Amino acid sequence: MKFSAERATLLKALAHIQSVAEKRNTIPILANVLIQAADGQLSLKATDMEIEVVEHVPATVIQEGATTAPASVLYEIVRKLPDGVSVELDQSSDGPLHLRAGRYATRLNVLNVDDFPSMGAGDFPHSFSLGSGILRSLIDKTRFAISTEETRYYLNGIYLHAAEVEGEPRLRAVATDGHRLARMETTLPAGAAGIPGVIIPRKTINELRKLIDEAPEEVAIALSDTRIQFTAGPVILTSKLIDGTFPEYERVIPRGNTRILRVGKKDFSDAVARVAAISQERSRPVKMALEPGLLTLSASSPEQGVAKEELDDNRVSYDAEALEIGFQARYLNDITDQVEKEVEFCFADSASPTIVRDVDSPSALYVLMPMRV
Amino acid sequence: MKFSAERATLLKALAHIQSVAEKRNTIPILANVLIQAADGQLSLKATDMEIEVVEHVPATVIQEGATTAPASVLYEIVRKLPDGVSVELDQSSDGPLHLRAGRYATRLNVLNVDDFPSMGAGDFPHSFSLGSGILRSLIDKTRFAISTEETRYYLNGIYLHAAEVEGEPRLRAVATDGHRLARMETTLPAGAAGIPGVIIPRKTINELRKLIDEAPEEVAIALSDTRIQFTAGPVILTSKLIDGTFPEYERVIPRGNTRILRVGKKDFSDAVARVAAISQERSRPVKMALEPGLLTLSASSPEQGVAKEELDDNRVSYDAEALEIGFQARYLNDITDQVEKEVEFCFADSASPTIVRDVDSPSALYVLMPMRV
Repeated sequence: MKFSAERATLLKALAHIQSVAEKRNTIPILANVLIQAADGQLSLKATDMEIEVVEHVPATVIQEGATTAPASVLYEIVRKLPDGVSVELDQSSDGPLHLRAGRYATRLNVLNVDDFPSMGAGDFPHSFSLGSGILRSLIDKTRFAISTEETRYYLNGIYLHAAEVEGEPRLRAVATDGHRLARMETTLPAGAAGIPGVIIPRKTINELRKLIDEAPEEVAIALSDTRIQFTAGPVILTSKLIDGTFPEYERVIPRGNTRILRVGKKDFSDAVARVAAISQERSRPVKMALEPGLLTLSASSPEQGVAKEELDDNRVSYDAEALEIGFQARYLNDITDQVEKEVEFCFADSASPTIVRDVDSPSALYVLMPMRV
Repeated sequence: MKFSAERATLLKALAHIQSVAEKRNTIPILANVLIQAADGQLSLKATDMEIEVVEHVPATVIQEGATTAPASVLYEIVRKLPDGVSVELDQSSDGPLHLRAGRYATRLNVLNVDDFPSMGAGDFPHSFSLGSGILRSLIDKTRFAISTEETRYYLNGIYLHAAEVEGEPRLRAVATDGHRLARMETTLPAGAAGIPGVIIPRKTINELRKLIDEAPEEVAIALSDTRIQFTAGPVILTSKLIDGTFPEYERVIPRGNTRILRVGKKDFSDAVARVAAISQERSRPVKMALEPGLLTLSASSPEQGVAKEELDDNRVSYDAEALEIGFQARYLNDITDQVEKEVEFCFADSASPTIVRDVDSPSALYVLMPMRV
């Protein structure tokens, strides 16, 4: 195998690849990238046996062939080469992989190509495509609510499924950790009718999210009951799905919460940050005391004292009965981080789930469980 | 006590203060800032019993008095207030400290002013001043070599002392961890003749370094055998010194190293980074193989392979006998980070201490112990 490639092109691909390759090194070959040179291009591949990423890179192929080399070392070396340089890689029969660039040369130990595992994707009976902007929203507006509790493995991802809302078919992303729920939806794209509901693991979501910013306008998605595959330009990301049943989340979304508060996102999140500053304890609640035309935020700490801030009717709109309710400050922040300009709370009472919405983005919906204050 | 102060002014002072206040909270009052309002200004003070920082802040004092409040909470609150706001603080007799800004209000628990400890600086028989630029250089060009080994406590700081070089009185800063030594010097300022050699602890150096970027042109320094005090504009930083004997470092600086290598700082440090990328092990050496007009850098890792880069006579100047010598990559980097354009190595042989210099900054000198390669 022998080829040369432009440093910047190679670097971009290796950045994607090394992020999927296994770092812990328990199975040495999983720390390697599989490099295949054929048909005038390279194919680079890494896997941790849950996710597999393949990227095609233009190259001048002098001799076709394949090898595997340590992904993170190769990435670090290429990253440190000067921009604009041409990188030549060369490996013959059982020998090491030689990398040359200008007067720099390295000889990397390789592992046998035949030992490089394949995840075996199988067939994908469903396929559709999504604009990269809407895919980004489906992720950003839900992933903060993904549970990190390993025992509730079926909550460790985003639940993607088809739903019908008032006769309209929708594609929905939902995540929840039992304390809050985030749901984002869009028009069901052509080809997605009849897809199974699938739970996409957090690591896959995070790798996909990194690819989206560089992705072309459309990302192709293919799906089976056990696998999902995203094709974003030259990159193909294939992942196992979480084998579990996502809870019937619709049940926890309250209907008929009638006390409505609207407040500017920045006014609200700044005030939450200031009152929460009284306590370093992450789970301490911020109390919202509501009366017509007035929201009083407060927090307290036995050691430090108390803090409060009032937002009056110049800043808030509320004309229902008085109410006191508490939420974890960081849960409020996670939601307001996703809100454009104005946030809407729909309360039932101080002990019941509260609905939160972005006034300018009706496709997103959040549910927050209150804390006792 | 009652006063109001401008948010930005207060924030800047609290940033300095909270960084010195004790975070671990074993003695609660050390986490507090002592606030004194008198004579139309505030004085803010924090200490961890090793370092004490006092800062004066302009304020509108309505009622003189003093209190103590949690430094980091107060800092976080003021940081999150909107810019341009006026902050009012108010505390009467035994009550809590009230802070108000617009419609934000907080009540902070206080601790008794009488319990706030004083480090008791005592007299400073020596005093002089240094330009903040040269003080910054004395710190930056030496502190990377400060030892972190707690058992060698006398190496856990920068040794500041007066020396005579060819009849000229000099002020010198030296740090060493036994593997490398860094020495920077300047003309001995007026008033510094006869100062004792003192070891300034790492934390003091780091706090002082943060102040310097905002400091006026001159920083006043006062000194006794046990204390040092820096006055930078409105901030006074007082610190205990390390009670120990700094080794006779002059002995480890070799004389008569005659093999001279000169190389561009960027060419050299980039090449070191590229060859070192072959190994993730921090202490693995980079080998420098020298022959007239040629420097070959190389590194190897039993797992990953080998890497090398050549710098030829377009890039290096060397015309002594051939030599092979190895150094830890990060020790080389720490030094080249401080070099402006061109670095000079003076070697004796492959097992002896090597002198490194910045060609454009003869006041700085570095000594590096080689590793066996």
